[in-house]
Amino acid sequence: MSAVASAAPRHGILLTLAYDGSRFSGFAPQNNGVTVAGVLRGAIRQMDPSVGTLRVASRTDAGVHARAQIVSFDTELQIESRGWLLGLSAFLPPEVAVQRVARVAAGFNPSQEAHAKTYHYWILRGTIRDPFLAGKAWRVHDRLDLAAMQREAEQLLGTHDFSAFRGAADRRENAVRTISRAELSELPESPRCLRFAIRGDRFLYNMVRIIVGTLVDVGRGRVEPGSFARAFASKERTDLGMTAPPDGLYLDRVELEDWGHSEWPNQF
Amino acid sequence: MSAVASAAPRHGILLTLAYDGSRFSGFAPQNNGVTVAGVLRGAIRQMDPSVGTLRVASRTDAGVHARAQIVSFDTELQIESRGWLLGLSAFLPPEVAVQRVARVAAGFNPSQEAHAKTYHYWILRGTIRDPFLAGKAWRVHDRLDLAAMQREAEQLLGTHDFSAFRGAADRRENAVRTISRAELSELPESPRCLRFAIRGDRFLYNMVRIIVGTLVDVGRGRVEPGSFARAFASKERTDLGMTAPPDGLYLDRVELEDWGHSEWPNQF
Repeated sequence: MSAVASAAPRHGILLTLAYDGSRFSGFAPQNNGVTVAGVLRGAIRQMDPSVGTLRVASRTDAGVHARAQIVSFDTELQIESRGWLLGLSAFLPPEVAVQRVARVAAGFNPSQEAHAKTYHYWILRGTIRDPFLAGKAWRVHDRLDLAAMQREAEQLLGTHDFSAFRGAADRRENAVRTISRAELSELPESPRCLRFAIRGDRFLYNMVRIIVGTLVDVGRGRVEPGSFARAFASKERTDLGMTAPPDGLYLDRVELEDWGHSEWPNQF
Repeated sequence: MSAVASAAPRHGILLTLAYDGSRFSGFAPQNNGVTVAGVLRGAIRQMDPSVGTLRVASRTDAGVHARAQIVSFDTELQIESRGWLLGLSAFLPPEVAVQRVARVAAGFNPSQEAHAKTYHYWILRGTIRDPFLAGKAWRVHDRLDLAAMQREAEQLLGTHDFSAFRGAADRRENAVRTISRAELSELPESPRCLRFAIRGDRFLYNMVRIIVGTLVDVGRGRVEPGSFARAFASKERTDLGMTAPPDGLYLDRVELEDWGHSEWPNQF
């Protein structure tokens, strides 16, 4: 690994990033506190003090995790991917880990290039806590009707107006979104857990957490089945259930239109 | 739940406990710092201020985790199992969680009654970190020869003199132990991880960590295959490899001779 700067043309570096969001106040600053972007910028600056804007595929909220967030920045440093991977790994805290590094065009914006995102949400059922999932799953005490939740989840598939499915902070005009996967399943390796996986073209603010909160409310009988269909028609937030806490939410995958790079192979 | 004390005869309470040991200086005090026993005793005292000795199946070291540690104590309180479960859960930090509660005879000692224990050890391969396994697996950069490690692990099965396999602090005379399971496997759900599972009648101090360190040293070519057989014969620690760090070690299961209680059923 060599970190020698040269006067080469500016280019982009694309990082795939995993993080445990439990102790971060989100990816980017909303209020106060330590952000993922803050510690990442600190690590990049150890290698390139002149680094500018970080561009991110999805600004995750406080307490939300990522298995494969995508972040890009521009640099003139001629460091190979492996050098960035090892260097940043040395400067990042254990909660944030670079998974892959690729070279892209300067100005590459993962948010604009993302054509699909997948989120996972973990639910831990029962009164018995799991210390290894503290802050990493939503623990739900009530009995859940899994079949009813699965039927409700299927109603999400396709293209709908998700105006009802967003936090008050979201002011985007167009709330039409296409959902291509919405699966709720028990995990053989963790039978007390449910995992909800949802893939869509884009997501509104708090959309996944409102969907999961509504699914759980249907599962425990607080909300009548058919709520998603009612909310598509009414566009009323009140036709849906609660907003699930951030703890169980993971940005699992971002699919880019033009990935356009060769990934650094894993070491095994 | 009712926590009313009465002058009933003293009896034992048996807890199955899971904990993330990352931030504890072990189950019981070795040096300074917060211990699992300390926070557990604090929680029990909230319910029974007169609680005495905690008896434990296996004193885990600093940084070592448990999925099913067994702890018992005596009390006169007539609280049903569910009351203990909910009460202790309310007073314990997220890193420590009661999994099951049972009523047993006063003085029941899980260490004496344990006829088998199973430990798991997690190894994360490669240079790429996993923020969700920080402090919860040993990350090994070197390429590992899995087949060689598996052949070596099989040599552990049966009854052997494990005198070479212990930390200097262990002064027990009899080091003959019987190993009934020693399996190293890749995990389909976490392909970068290896999990070593070992079941035996009793374990010496640092025995599992010395076994795992030696397996890894065989896997990366630092120790010649056949080291376990050589160490059984020589009783020399120097015939073995390094001691693995505590991070990846989990007390997975304790089998009691006379479990003698009805478990509180899980809530789903």
